[in-house]
Order: sequence, then structure tokens, then C-alpha cells
Amino acid sequence: MTLLKVGVLVSGRGSNLEAILKAVGSGVIKGAEVSVVISNMPDARALGVARRYGVKAVGLPSEGVAREDYDGMLVEALRRHGVEPGKGLVLLAGYMKMLSKYFVELYQGRIMNIHPSLLPSFPGLNAQRQALEYGVKISGCTVHFVVPEVDAGPIILQKAVEIHRGDTEETLALRILRQEHRIYPQAVKLFVEGRLKVEGRRTVAAR
Amino acid sequence: MTLLKVGVLVSGRGSNLEAILKAVGSGVIKGAEVSVVISNMPDARALGVARRYGVKAVGLPSEGVAREDYDGMLVEALRRHGVEPGKGLVLLAGYMKMLSKYFVELYQGRIMNIHPSLLPSFPGLNAQRQALEYGVKISGCTVHFVVPEVDAGPIILQKAVEIHRGDTEETLALRILRQEHRIYPQAVKLFVEGRLKVEGRRTVAAR
Repeated sequence: MTLLKVGVLVSGRGSNLEAILKAVGSGVIKGAEVSVVISNMPDARALGVARRYGVKAVGLPSEGVAREDYDGMLVEALRRHGVEPGKGLVLLAGYMKMLSKYFVELYQGRIMNIHPSLLPSFPGLNAQRQALEYGVKISGCTVHFVVPEVDAGPIILQKAVEIHRGDTEETLALRILRQEHRIYPQAVKLFVEGRLKVEGRRTVAAR
Repeated sequence: MTLLKVGVLVSGRGSNLEAILKAVGSGVIKGAEVSVVISNMPDARALGVARRYGVKAVGLPSEGVAREDYDGMLVEALRRHGVEPGKGLVLLAGYMKMLSKYFVELYQGRIMNIHPSLLPSFPGLNAQRQALEYGVKISGCTVHFVVPEVDAGPIILQKAVEIHRGDTEETLALRILRQEHRIYPQAVKLFVEGRLKVEGRRTVAAR
């Protein structure tokens, strides 16, 4: 049986990366392997997480590189580790750089992202702060397929999280993060098992 | 002890109205009475609900009346039943007409609405259909203070509701409605007990 090759793009501490590596390592996600983790920030803690799990970690600095050029380098690095367009799966896990249309179309339907709000509310940066400033009582997190528009692709899974009185951006982010660590591996598992069907904007998970 | 006078504006079947009348009747909401229910649709079922609970029911057709003129008539009817600006509370319960800036400013901070989505997602009409078409996995309902902009005022309470596979607009609307019937009376209770404090966009409920 051929394993689905997964590439994870990161920029930060890699807690969602770790949740996925754990789910693969423990057999919750079967039939896939994370074959490369690529960070656009060369000193991201996530690269250390990857190495700790025995996964190839690549620092590929994006600073000063034009977006399309950078994404060309990304594609090259992904392919070198077997994450082929039309076959592999690309996961954004705290990846803070926008992908080019070129990249998104090349891996169309095979790129997932996790976002710390119940989309379509609060897309973009600082979603937790946006939620607190708006004054919502419930926020959450969303796993979605990536399309060229930011945080706008078909939604795979969502989880609601209550806002508590006295929440700061940090306490809310942490409460949401705990749910991110649950739903992101679940979403990857559904994909790997071939159970996700996208119909227009709607994603249906086969039983 | 003077009871807070509540006026409820309706257009339809009045199921949220009934939830509030029950909460007042059973003593869950203490210190308030619904003194008038006004419908802009003269044959709304909600008027019958009001009468069944012994509440004054007023049909005040809006068709063909300019918005400001109509809202002047509304104010007159509310005041006639003791729902005074700065003192009473106005509840929108399936009221399908936009209020004028004049009305909203007159009863500023004393008008609540319930909306069948987790605002700021899916404001406006057909929120359940919007949610299904967008493909979210979680929607819900929101009680908020009314400001001149539609569905944009400070949020008082929200409740998340899962979207099920195979949901239609009707099945989703019904599942959300069950939660509306819980949180709208809760929000009114907080108001009546003087426990709601608005700080900018954020509403804080004192314990």
C-alpha cells in the first residue's frame, strides 16, 4: 500500500504540526506519512518539532524573495519529498505567508488550512483579537480547503469555542488552539481515507 | 415595585414571542410585563399568541406607509401602553421591517433582536439559507442590541448549532429556533435584572 505523502508548511511553533504528527504516529491517521516540513522562517520552532518526530525539516527563508519565485521553490522542495501535485497533500499549519494563485491551482483541492475563527467571521490576521473586539460570545476554529482568496475555501470541519468574561487574546487563542489540535487531525484523516467530497462550496464527509 | 414595560414587535408566527411570554408567566423573568405586541402584518399568527396570553395585540399595517411615518405610529402605540423611550424595552421577534434611525435612537440601548446565525456571519435575510449555501458546519443564533445598521449591534448572547448532513433550510431553521427560544428569554432576563453593561461593542453580563 502506498502512503499518501503529506507536506506541512509552517512559520511558527508548530503545535498543529505536532498534533498531526502524533495522529500519524499513533495510527489515528492511517495511510499517510508526513514526508517534509517546510518553514519560511528559518528559525521556527516547528522545524525542531519535525526533527523530533524524525521528519525532514527544511528551512526555506522567504524574506526578499518574490512570491511566485518562492512558491516555485516550495513546489520543488515538496516534489523532492514526494508531495506531488494531484497526489500529495499540503497542510498549512500556522504558515504566515500567502500562497500564490499558481501554487494553489497546482495543488488544487489538496491544500488545507486551519483558521482560529468560525469562518466566514474574522478571516485574515489576528482572528482572536478581531473576535474579542467585535464582542462575539462564541468563536472557534475552521479547517478548510485553500483557494486563492484568503480563508474563503470550502469548509471541512468547524468547532465552536465559548468566549469567557475576562478573556484576553492569549487565553482565547489557547482555548481555540486546543480545539484546533482535535479537528485538524480529524480533517486530515477524512481526506486520507478518501471520505471528503466537495460539492461547490460545500464539503460532505462520507460515512 | 414598578414592572418594566416590554413591547414586542412581530410579523410572523410569534414563536419567540411565546417563549418570552412563557418566561414572564412562569416567573423566570421577574420584574417585567409584556404590555403590548404590535404586528406590521395585520394577520400575523403572533397576534393570536399575544391574545392567548392576555396581552394587548395591535395590528398596525405597514404596507404603503413611509418608514418614518410608520415608526412614529409605532412609538405612539408603544407609549400608549407604557413602553416609554429611556424606560421600556422593545423586543423584535421575527419583525421583518427595518426600523428607522429615528426609532432606534429614541429607544437607544433598549431594543433587542434575535437573529438566526452567529453574527457577524450571515446578517440580513435568509440567514439559514446563507449558512447552508456557504457550507459552514456550525451556525447558531444571536441576541443583540439594535443599532441603525442591520444586525450589527452589540451582542448579548449567542448559541452555536451544528449543521447536519442533509439539512434543509427548514430542518436547520427549526434546530436553531429551539435555541432561540432559550437564549432570547435569558437575554431579556439579564436586561430586566439590570445586569447588562455595554462597553463599546462588547456587552458584559454582571453576575
